[in-house]
Amino acid sequence: MAPIITLTTDFGRRDPFVGIMKGVILSICPTARLVDLTHAVEPQDVLGASLALAAALPFFPAGTVHLVVVDPGVGGRRRPLAVRTGGHYFVGPDNGVLTPALGGPRWTAVALSAPEYRLPEVSRTFHGRDVFAPAAAYLAAGVPLERLGAMVADPVRAPVPGSRLEGDVLVGEVLAIDRFGNLITSIEAGQLAALAGDGPVAVEVSGRPVAGLVEAYAAGEDGQPAAIIGSTGRFEIFVRGGSARQALGVGRGAPVRIRRRG
Amino acid sequence: MAPIITLTTDFGRRDPFVGIMKGVILSICPTARLVDLTHAVEPQDVLGASLALAAALPFFPAGTVHLVVVDPGVGGRRRPLAVRTGGHYFVGPDNGVLTPALGGPRWTAVALSAPEYRLPEVSRTFHGRDVFAPAAAYLAAGVPLERLGAMVADPVRAPVPGSRLEGDVLVGEVLAIDRFGNLITSIEAGQLAALAGDGPVAVEVSGRPVAGLVEAYAAGEDGQPAAIIGSTGRFEIFVRGGSARQALGVGRGAPVRIRRRG
Amino acid sequence: MAPIITLTTDFGRRDPFVGIMKGVILSICPTARLVDLTHAVEPQDVLGASLALAAALPFFPAGTVHLVVVDPGVGGRRRPLAVRTGGHYFVGPDNGVLTPALGGPRWTAVALSAPEYRLPEVSRTFHGRDVFAPAAAYLAAGVPLERLGAMVADPVRAPVPGSRLEGDVLVGEVLAIDRFGNLITSIEAGQLAALAGDGPVAVEVSGRPVAGLVEAYAAGEDGQPAAIIGSTGRFEIFVRGGSARQALGVGRGAPVRIRRRG
Repeated sequence: MAPIITLTTDFGRRDPFVGIMKGVILSICPTARLVDLTHAVEPQDVLGASLALAAALPFFPAGTVHLVVVDPGVGGRRRPLAVRTGGHYFVGPDNGVLTPALGGPRWTAVALSAPEYRLPEVSRTFHGRDVFAPAAAYLAAGVPLERLGAMVADPVRAPVPGSRLEGDVLVGEVLAIDRFGNLITSIEAGQLAALAGDGPVAVEVSGRPVAGLVEAYAAGEDGQPAAIIGSTGRFEIFVRGGSARQALGVGRGAPVRIRRRG
Repeated sequence: MAPIITLTTDFGRRDPFVGIMKGVILSICPTARLVDLTHAVEPQDVLGASLALAAALPFFPAGTVHLVVVDPGVGGRRRPLAVRTGGHYFVGPDNGVLTPALGGPRWTAVALSAPEYRLPEVSRTFHGRDVFAPAAAYLAAGVPLERLGAMVADPVRAPVPGSRLEGDVLVGEVLAIDRFGNLITSIEAGQLAALAGDGPVAVEVSGRPVAGLVEAYAAGEDGQPAAIIGSTGRFEIFVRGGSARQALGVGRGAPVRIRRRG
Repeated sequence: MAPIITLTTDFGRRDPFVGIMKGVILSICPTARLVDLTHAVEPQDVLGASLALAAALPFFPAGTVHLVVVDPGVGGRRRPLAVRTGGHYFVGPDNGVLTPALGGPRWTAVALSAPEYRLPEVSRTFHGRDVFAPAAAYLAAGVPLERLGAMVADPVRAPVPGSRLEGDVLVGEVLAIDRFGNLITSIEAGQLAALAGDGPVAVEVSGRPVAGLVEAYAAGEDGQPAAIIGSTGRFEIFVRGGSARQALGVGRGAPVRIRRRG
C-alpha cells in the first residue's frame, strides 16, 4: 500500500516552500501519498503545531509518516529527530513539536545525522527541504528508523496545558481558536465528566458566564456563547452562526472555569 | 483506475480539519485521488459551495465522488445524504449544497444512516470526519450507493438565482466575486443570446453603465468595467488589470440589467 | 513511474479554478501526481511566478511537467507555450513566466496550437483549464512535445534582476519577501564571494545598515536585521523571531548595497 506522509508547517502557502519539500519527497519515494494538515501554524508556534498533529493522529493508518517543520532553531544546535511509536513515524526538530509522539510508554527516537539520508548539500536555513523531507521520504520508502542516526533518549517535550481542580472548580484555559471562532480549551471531556457526570454546569470564560453544555451547535442560541464537547473530545465554547472569539473578545490563554451546578 | 474524490468545504486551511478528513478517506480507500475544489467557502454559505461545485463538475470524469461539507446544521436534524447521477457521486448535508446534483431527470439519493459506513464513534460537531468522509471513501471504493442508507425522495434544493425579462430588459444579479474582483452574474450566455443575438447591448450594474460585451480580458480598457462571457458560460463584469468589485463598489446580489441596443 | 505535474498560478485558492484544472489533468492523465507550488502569486506578477518556479526546479525529478498560469493576456495574442529542457517540461503563456526554462543552451519550445491537445471548447478567459492543463497532462502522459504545435524560436524572456558592481560596492535589490518577512535579494552567494571572499561585509538596505552575514537565523539578535545566505543561494535579510520587512519598512525593489569591510 502506498505510504502516507502528512505535512504540518508554519511555512504558509504563499511561498513555494511546501511544494519544494514535496518535490524532494517524491524524488525519493515516488509512491508517497501527501496530505497537508496545515501550513498556517503561526510562525514558530510549537504548541499550535503540536495540537494540530494530536488532533489528526488517530485518523491516519499505521505506517503513516508525520512530518512537522516548525523550526525557529534551524541551523543552530537543536537536533533534527525521527520518532517511531505505535506503528506511526514522526519527523521534525527537537523543540517539542513531536510531543504527541512521546506520550506513550514505548517510542524510539533518533537524531537525523546519517548524511546518506539527507540531501547532498544542507543549507543553514531550510532543513525542511534538506533534512526533514528526505528523512520522511526514506522512512516512507521503508528505510528502518535506526539507520537514520544515533538513538536519542531525551527528546524535548512541550506538554500541552491541561486543567486542574481548585476546590470544586475545574480550571483550564483557551488553547486554540479555530476558523469559526470556536474556543478550544485545555479541559477534556473525561475531566468534565469526573467533575459533574452528566449534570448541569456553570461555565465562565475570562469571568464572563456562558451557557452550559449543549449537544449540537444547532442547539445554541443566536449570538449567545455556549459550551459543547468538540470533535477532539475537548470542551469548546462556540456561538451559533457567529464567533465566540468575537463575542467574548478573548484569545489563547484566557481562563476557563467550570463549576457543578445544583 | 484510481477513483477521484473532490473536497469542497467552509473549513478553511488554517485548522487540520481537511487533512483529518483525508486521513479518514485514505484509511478506507487508499487508492483515492484527492482534489481540493475550495475550502474557503464563507462559513455556512450554501450557495457559494453550490456554485463552486457546479463550475467544476463538467471537468471531472465519471465515477468521481464530490464531497461537500458546508454544514451549519451538524448534529441537528438535517439528513446526511449521498446522491448518484450521471455516473457521478455526491456526498453532503441535506441543506441544498447538493442542488447541482439534482438538476437532471434521474438521480438516486440516500440518507447516510448505515452505521457500518460511518466511523465507529460519531461526534456531534464534525460529521465531515465521522459521516461524510467515510461515505465518500466507501463509494470511491465501490460500495453501492444503496447500501449506505434508506432512499430519500425529497432532498432539499437551494436553486441558484437566475434571470428574468422585464419588458425588453434582461435582469439578473451578481452571484459571486472571484479572486480577481470579477463579478459573476446570474445571467447565462444562452439567455443573453436570446435577448440580443450577437448584437450590441447596454449593460448596467447597480444602475451604473459598463462597457458592452468584449471578447477577451485584454480587450477591456484600463480601469473601465466591461462585460464578457466567463469561463462557466456566465455573463461577467471585469476590469482589465484591476478589480470590478472595487471599481463599482458592489457586492453579491447587486442588480444587473442588460438591454439590446440599436 | 507516475509523472509529476507542478502547478503555479495567480488564481488563489478561494475559487475552484485550481481544482478544475486538476480535474482536466486527471481526466487525461489519471496517474499524474499533482504538486502545488503556489497559487498566491500576485495577480499578473510574472516575476513572482518565475522566482517560485526557479526555486523549486532543482528539487523535482527529470520528467516533471511544470505548469505555470499567470496570464494577463489570456484570450489575446500571446502564444501558449510548452518548453522541454534538461528532461523537464514547462507549460504556460509566452509572457516571460517560463524564463527559468530558457536559461540553458538547449531547449525546445512549441506553441500549443494542435486542437487535439486542447479541450474541445476553448473559452476566452480560462486557458489554464482549456489549453494549458490539457497540454501538461498530455506531456505527462507521454505525448511528444513536438506534437503539441509548431516550433517557437523566440519565446519571451523576462530576466530576473541581478546585481552590479559600482566601484567597490555590490548593488542589488529586494526581489521578493517571504511569509516570515525575510527579504530575498537579487544578489547571489557567488557574487558576494567574488566581492569579499569569506571576509566581513557592510550591508545597507534602502540606506539603513544591517548586521553582516551570519551563519544561521538563530545567530541573529532579536529585533536586529541581519544578513544570511538563504536556501536558494541568495543574499537575504532577516530578523530573528520577527520580520525584516516590518523592521526596515521596505518592499520589493528596495536597493541593497554591500561593501567589503576592513
